[in-house]
Amino acid sequence: MRAVVINCTLKPGPEQSNTEALAEVVAAELRERKVEVDTVRAVDLDIRPGVQTDMGPGDGWPRVHDTLLRAEILIMATPTWVGHPSSVAQRVLERMDAMISETDDAGRPVAYDRVAGVVVTGNEDGAHHVTSEITGALGDIGYTIPGQAWTYWHLGPGPGPDYLDTDQGREWSHKTGRAMAANLFAVAEALAARPMTAPPE
Amino acid sequence: MRAVVINCTLKPGPEQSNTEALAEVVAAELRERKVEVDTVRAVDLDIRPGVQTDMGPGDGWPRVHDTLLRAEILIMATPTWVGHPSSVAQRVLERMDAMISETDDAGRPVAYDRVAGVVVTGNEDGAHHVTSEITGALGDIGYTIPGQAWTYWHLGPGPGPDYLDTDQGREWSHKTGRAMAANLFAVAEALAARPMTAPPE
Amino acid sequence: MRAVVINCTLKPGPEQSNTEALAEVVAAELRERKVEVDTVRAVDLDIRPGVQTDMGPGDGWPRVHDTLLRAEILIMATPTWVGHPSSVAQRVLERMDAMISETDDAGRPVAYDRVAGVVVTGNEDGAHHVTSEITGALGDIGYTIPGQAWTYWHLGPGPGPDYLDTDQGREWSHKTGRAMAANLFAVAEALAARPMTAPPE
Amino acid sequence: MRAVVINCTLKPGPEQSNTEALAEVVAAELRERKVEVDTVRAVDLDIRPGVQTDMGPGDGWPRVHDTLLRAEILIMATPTWVGHPSSVAQRVLERMDAMISETDDAGRPVAYDRVAGVVVTGNEDGAHHVTSEITGALGDIGYTIPGQAWTYWHLGPGPGPDYLDTDQGREWSHKTGRAMAANLFAVAEALAARPMTAPPE
Repeated sequence: MRAVVINCTLKPGPEQSNTEALAEVVAAELRERKVEVDTVRAVDLDIRPGVQTDMGPGDGWPRVHDTLLRAEILIMATPTWVGHPSSVAQRVLERMDAMISETDDAGRPVAYDRVAGVVVTGNEDGAHHVTSEITGALGDIGYTIPGQAWTYWHLGPGPGPDYLDTDQGREWSHKTGRAMAANLFAVAEALAARPMTAPPE
Repeated sequence: MRAVVINCTLKPGPEQSNTEALAEVVAAELRERKVEVDTVRAVDLDIRPGVQTDMGPGDGWPRVHDTLLRAEILIMATPTWVGHPSSVAQRVLERMDAMISETDDAGRPVAYDRVAGVVVTGNEDGAHHVTSEITGALGDIGYTIPGQAWTYWHLGPGPGPDYLDTDQGREWSHKTGRAMAANLFAVAEALAARPMTAPPE
Repeated sequence: MRAVVINCTLKPGPEQSNTEALAEVVAAELRERKVEVDTVRAVDLDIRPGVQTDMGPGDGWPRVHDTLLRAEILIMATPTWVGHPSSVAQRVLERMDAMISETDDAGRPVAYDRVAGVVVTGNEDGAHHVTSEITGALGDIGYTIPGQAWTYWHLGPGPGPDYLDTDQGREWSHKTGRAMAANLFAVAEALAARPMTAPPE
Repeated sequence: MRAVVINCTLKPGPEQSNTEALAEVVAAELRERKVEVDTVRAVDLDIRPGVQTDMGPGDGWPRVHDTLLRAEILIMATPTWVGHPSSVAQRVLERMDAMISETDDAGRPVAYDRVAGVVVTGNEDGAHHVTSEITGALGDIGYTIPGQAWTYWHLGPGPGPDYLDTDQGREWSHKTGRAMAANLFAVAEALAARPMTAPPE
């Protein structure tokens, strides 16, 4: 089984990413279950604005699209900015929009039988909303969202330290992240054993 | 297999409910698959404000709670008001909040292995947001949200007719509702055959 | 000048309300500016489901509606439940929906020249989203939302104490609440001095 | 008085933009009131990811930032993608985030006394949510959001034509857009005549 973490931080590599650090807890738990995990740092690729799978020469998206199609498990990892998923996360979702119309030989959208979850970091507040925004979009595209398939680290109220700056709350975020990994894995296995059917006419 | 439709219209019975009418398309498709479908019109029960499973004498919630625990499939059906799920839908979600802490003998939240989807009606606009709000909350509680497990009928821009007032757009909403039923059923069966595991320590 | 705080806690009076306690910081700052402040605990009234100003005998809404029309400043105060405004807050917004069609002698919606802000409490996370949901709806109805007209207290990540259980973060929430009061007052005064015009044909 | 329209379409110029076309209705109504209106097509600038006002050589943002500071009125115009503001709109909001800490000589955030509204286009559904997301963020930054300061064009349910492809619903969207312009203008004038005060200590 394969998973892909799309890290939607605004910071180019190799700058330290809080979001990646928390996503790594989930990835580690998946590796315990023999899942191979790829990581994509989307801001480092030249992902063009648009809603088709290939937006022309130099577009960094087609390679990510291929990685998505190889993975049964998707983890969208994003910081919260102005209370929303990052612009990089929204760009990724816009490019995934074309997958709604891509179907397999059985006429099923390509995202069927795949599962997705969300990792959020930031100071202040916003993780539940960011998670709902992302899982809502991924559900449209055809991903199944297992129960309790998210974790986050936020420390409100008001501005404050980042996830990597303090130990406060980390234990909860990590435990929740390990449960997320277990749930992604369990539902991905269930759907691999018993796939979804083609939409009725 | 059992399903429950919670109709969160603001209108008391037996007044005609657009939301119920569209939800019925999904229910009919489930019955084709031998699923037994219950319907609850939440506004007709005296569901008290609060976040515990039993808010005392006269509280209408405990009976709904029992119905939820008998059903592998949940369909939340709601009108859009001021762009949001109805107050009745939010009341239902608040009362479901206690289910996060209710676990089975294996230590799994009671919503594990259950699936949920959303039906939305209204004039103007708002279905994708309403769906994300509801599925985000149900995912917290432990429900799995199958890919493309929603349908809606809205007719924008601006005010206009209700779902039952016109044929416009109905065919699309019905087809999408049948796909929703198929996806709910497929994922519920997959999880019945291969249940989720208890959260890791 | 008059203000009204609508406290949308789920708890009936006289139970202690965290939301009321934080809203009181804003109210006190308004009183410093000679604003008369009324408070409504909505859950204690029998506010019926529906979207008309009077839903019949026993309906508790018409009295709140009158209070709204006497006040230049509205403060919606709500706990966060499952990441959303409370069902009581949503009920209030649904009943306010009818105000879109209520106009004054000049043909202006009755909410014109009135301002609104939001107070949010809860454990975990969600205040910015709750604020956006409520101000978005109030903007539809015709309320003007001054810059930085909100405060909140949330302490994430994960479950934890309530606002009244700890001193952590209070100072920031109170300072932000005093700024909110100043901004509500300043914009209400500006609109009183120079009212909005009727919508163009 | 000056206004700026930030068009957040994903399409590079000079491709035809539905969003720009609807925003132009609002701009024309502002020009009737002697407001000078600038338009920025954000996707054509190289606006770098980040949350500071200047992200280094080649960054296209500082020029937009200057335009914002010259304008009393801001119109964010965006298509809806996967139910959300476009990635270009979110990028703009992220770059505006730094304005929270930029203050004038009186210690007031630079966005005080400025007003903002939203124009949304798309097929399907989502305008009220997109508006709430954007106005919520702009309110954090310090913009005042006048009552009824938005318009949109969406045609649900399901996929369908774009705004420029059909006349359906246009009249309503235009009338609502003219009211939006009048409300932005009226509140901007009121705040120019009677400015907001500095936040209390």
